[in-house]
Amino acid sequence: MSAQVDSVPKTLPGRYYTDPEIFREELDRFYCQTWVCVGRTEQVRNPGDYFLREIARENIIITRDRDRNIRAFYNVCRHRGTRMATDPEGSFAGRIQCPYHGWTYALDGKLIGAPHMDEAGGFCREEYPLNRVHAGAWDGHIFVNLNPNALPLETQLADLPQKFRPWRMGELRLARRIVYDVNANWKLILSNYNECLHCPLLHPALNRLTNYLGADNERPQSTYIGGAMGFRDGAQTMSLDGERRRDYLPGLNAEEREKVCYYSILPNFLLSLHPDYMMTATLWPAAVDRTGIIAEWHFHPDEMGKPDFEANDAIDFWDITNREDWKICELSQAGIQSRAYQPGPYSDRETLLHAFDQMVLAREREGREGKRR
Amino acid sequence: MSAQVDSVPKTLPGRYYTDPEIFREELDRFYCQTWVCVGRTEQVRNPGDYFLREIARENIIITRDRDRNIRAFYNVCRHRGTRMATDPEGSFAGRIQCPYHGWTYALDGKLIGAPHMDEAGGFCREEYPLNRVHAGAWDGHIFVNLNPNALPLETQLADLPQKFRPWRMGELRLARRIVYDVNANWKLILSNYNECLHCPLLHPALNRLTNYLGADNERPQSTYIGGAMGFRDGAQTMSLDGERRRDYLPGLNAEEREKVCYYSILPNFLLSLHPDYMMTATLWPAAVDRTGIIAEWHFHPDEMGKPDFEANDAIDFWDITNREDWKICELSQAGIQSRAYQPGPYSDRETLLHAFDQMVLAREREGREGKRR
Amino acid sequence: MSAQVDSVPKTLPGRYYTDPEIFREELDRFYCQTWVCVGRTEQVRNPGDYFLREIARENIIITRDRDRNIRAFYNVCRHRGTRMATDPEGSFAGRIQCPYHGWTYALDGKLIGAPHMDEAGGFCREEYPLNRVHAGAWDGHIFVNLNPNALPLETQLADLPQKFRPWRMGELRLARRIVYDVNANWKLILSNYNECLHCPLLHPALNRLTNYLGADNERPQSTYIGGAMGFRDGAQTMSLDGERRRDYLPGLNAEEREKVCYYSILPNFLLSLHPDYMMTATLWPAAVDRTGIIAEWHFHPDEMGKPDFEANDAIDFWDITNREDWKICELSQAGIQSRAYQPGPYSDRETLLHAFDQMVLAREREGREGKRR
Repeated sequence: MSAQVDSVPKTLPGRYYTDPEIFREELDRFYCQTWVCVGRTEQVRNPGDYFLREIARENIIITRDRDRNIRAFYNVCRHRGTRMATDPEGSFAGRIQCPYHGWTYALDGKLIGAPHMDEAGGFCREEYPLNRVHAGAWDGHIFVNLNPNALPLETQLADLPQKFRPWRMGELRLARRIVYDVNANWKLILSNYNECLHCPLLHPALNRLTNYLGADNERPQSTYIGGAMGFRDGAQTMSLDGERRRDYLPGLNAEEREKVCYYSILPNFLLSLHPDYMMTATLWPAAVDRTGIIAEWHFHPDEMGKPDFEANDAIDFWDITNREDWKICELSQAGIQSRAYQPGPYSDRETLLHAFDQMVLAREREGREGKRR
Repeated sequence: MSAQVDSVPKTLPGRYYTDPEIFREELDRFYCQTWVCVGRTEQVRNPGDYFLREIARENIIITRDRDRNIRAFYNVCRHRGTRMATDPEGSFAGRIQCPYHGWTYALDGKLIGAPHMDEAGGFCREEYPLNRVHAGAWDGHIFVNLNPNALPLETQLADLPQKFRPWRMGELRLARRIVYDVNANWKLILSNYNECLHCPLLHPALNRLTNYLGADNERPQSTYIGGAMGFRDGAQTMSLDGERRRDYLPGLNAEEREKVCYYSILPNFLLSLHPDYMMTATLWPAAVDRTGIIAEWHFHPDEMGKPDFEANDAIDFWDITNREDWKICELSQAGIQSRAYQPGPYSDRETLLHAFDQMVLAREREGREGKRR
Repeated sequence: MSAQVDSVPKTLPGRYYTDPEIFREELDRFYCQTWVCVGRTEQVRNPGDYFLREIARENIIITRDRDRNIRAFYNVCRHRGTRMATDPEGSFAGRIQCPYHGWTYALDGKLIGAPHMDEAGGFCREEYPLNRVHAGAWDGHIFVNLNPNALPLETQLADLPQKFRPWRMGELRLARRIVYDVNANWKLILSNYNECLHCPLLHPALNRLTNYLGADNERPQSTYIGGAMGFRDGAQTMSLDGERRRDYLPGLNAEEREKVCYYSILPNFLLSLHPDYMMTATLWPAAVDRTGIIAEWHFHPDEMGKPDFEANDAIDFWDITNREDWKICELSQAGIQSRAYQPGPYSDRETLLHAFDQMVLAREREGREGKRR
């Protein structure tokens, strides 16, 4: 009650960051019902190439079939349930074989071999394909959707493909991947990404390159939130010294060369588009208070082919900044777990967070109404 | 529903491998109500010798009293509940003394000393013996039963003593013990032990010695399942090269010398009788998805006394094979935990597994009916 | 039933040491509703000095404000809930600043800075002070009380300040701190502290200095229990050899110089007053079967200033004894977790334990009646 006497918008109640039951519901709602970014098409360049991804405790195989379609399957043999692939990435020799009793599947999931099963009367091979998961791609980013009745990926992406076409993300290539393990709820990481009010105190290096008051936020959409920030005088990109050591990405116009776009594409994809490179982060909730983060730095292959190509100025800059962010998210998580925590007031510099909170509440309402029906 | 349209017998629903509540019930039903194999009589050769065993989270002392009876007790002092013995094995000096306040018990469990208790009016020493557990032995194997109303051990063993008399197991002695910690439900380990359909792919070394299609399975009994397998040409026992480096066990006839008997004696005893040695494994469920396994290799003392006695050919062979098995059981556990897992079809080579599953279900039904009554 | 046929008082049922729900209730009842000893005033000698203490999973800042009042706060920023201080002890530079967005509080908890909040209409700084916790001190010992409606500290301490005035505890200074992590319920540690029946068997070194039958216990009070023990011939204090290497504490009379007072001040403070030093221990329940213990040795500064000051004879003596005690408490915990555990009989040497058990039950009754009302 008394928490609502003033008119300032407030942070969410603590249970949204601490209650395992709400976490399980959010995991289902956001990670099992919608499209989740899992990686890049260059990870499955050739048929049979694959990588594994853990989504909401489900181990998923992402691969490419003989017709070059991207395919995703639950990593579960239809015979006795064995997990088949164990290396986090690799290449299948034209087929997926369970190591236990040798059941064998084509790259499109069809069962093509089941030793000694035909001796058993009534066995019908067609009934036991791998369990398929919807898969799709946008400009090099692979998405999967565990919901059997998934809407098309395009619906969820809305106008994003058009908005970011100039960056030609599909052409970019991975230079470095860093995996973080953060003791904080996934939403705290998203919230942290969506405001720069904390930049002066927490990120002195970043604050020298960009003006934290200069964020140009777009009106929140139903599946993403974000905005752009320009540079302070003298800076040309986000790097240790603000210098740009690579050509601009080839498709950008003058205006696009002078900003960084920071977008949170729900539920798990943080897309940071720089004038000369792309940083991505995908969030992997492991528990109500724990989230894995896969951060990647992608550059244009023309630049990567140059003998003096350098990426560490950008990678190290963000690695330092990321660690500062994850650390403060962990302290937020710790504090919010207190009985003393109450929703606190948002400033005008935190409007995207309030919008995100409202989305979370709206999805919760929809989910509960859906169940009631 | 649709999972039942074909007539093939199927594996159990996933909850039998993942639900902690079903696990607790099974632990009670199989490990607290029936006879469980805990070790060998040679571990308590003399009065006062003892070893500890954790059964269904209960720490049990197995010892031998002055009259040479094997005795088992909860490791709990009747004064303030303290666990008394802590070394996993050892020898009591004629009595069991609690290290806290010195309450002292005879090897048959009677309380014989309780310092300063007699000052308290109304204290009656006879009311505080150690909590006894039923204990018994079969041919050198010690069994205990936590059920106060246990049926005789002989009832549970049925015809096993007669069946395996020729191996004279009571004479054999331990050469090596290896303890494994496996992230899989105990039933998956039993299932793995009861079929060799997986041998060609998983155990190439084993498959060179024995024909996986040659299993001669006995009709499943209510307390055990098993069968025998012969050797391929040139092999004489299960060892790294199939050579037999020890005399045949003394009581075996020609037919018994040419096979290995693999028996699962419920709930926890895997008995592998070879022409020249015995391998045993006991299963110790620690959680729904975790099981300790104590594997032991026993040989005839006449052989062990020979200067050129060798055991590593047999131990290493099975240690390698065991690790291959435990690894695949862990992958089964991981896969079955998926929402995508559904009961899968058994082949004709997996009939013992189906029989075991049916036993598990039958005991569950009995248990629930027992409660209802 | 049958457990009650004899007239001997008995230990508590096992659930009081194993049930997480009872643990949570006790944590609330004893650690969140009453005064808990957290440290010493010398830890916050100057304004801004602080240390952190985890109480019932709540992280509390204990500090001293500009007016030299001792203050305690939940370590939770009122903006977005962030934990602000992370070093276990240190000194604030005149104010407490949250490292996330820079909200800043005076040492008395008032919010004095909140960047960009004034831009938001309707924000009222006075509504967001730090969450205060009651704090007080007795002769150098700091206590806090998480209950907003706490009774005065003096009420809980009753006659203790008068009883122990001669030891002039406020003058003593810390020489050594040892932190232990014990796998036992907090009440088992209290019980262990309150009887010496276990001394002959468990503590042979201690038993040479003091006669375990010579405890002079005070009648149990509602907030503390304890008593005194004299020395055996030749011993002058508790130390490795019974020798006293320091002057008597300055305020003691002849009778007070010849005993050690052992008091358990509920819920968490074990106070051991020796003729020449003070040992304290505070208990920090972490789980139903796990307790942190902070033991400290305090001496008179006059002695500590002497060039030949020695403390190890006392510290090592108790460190050895403590470890013996914690080990046996862990064995008690392990045994009590057994299904075989039943309440056991107390001797006349364990009357304080029975009194403590009755307090625990009485508080439980009060708590439940309070809820019902």
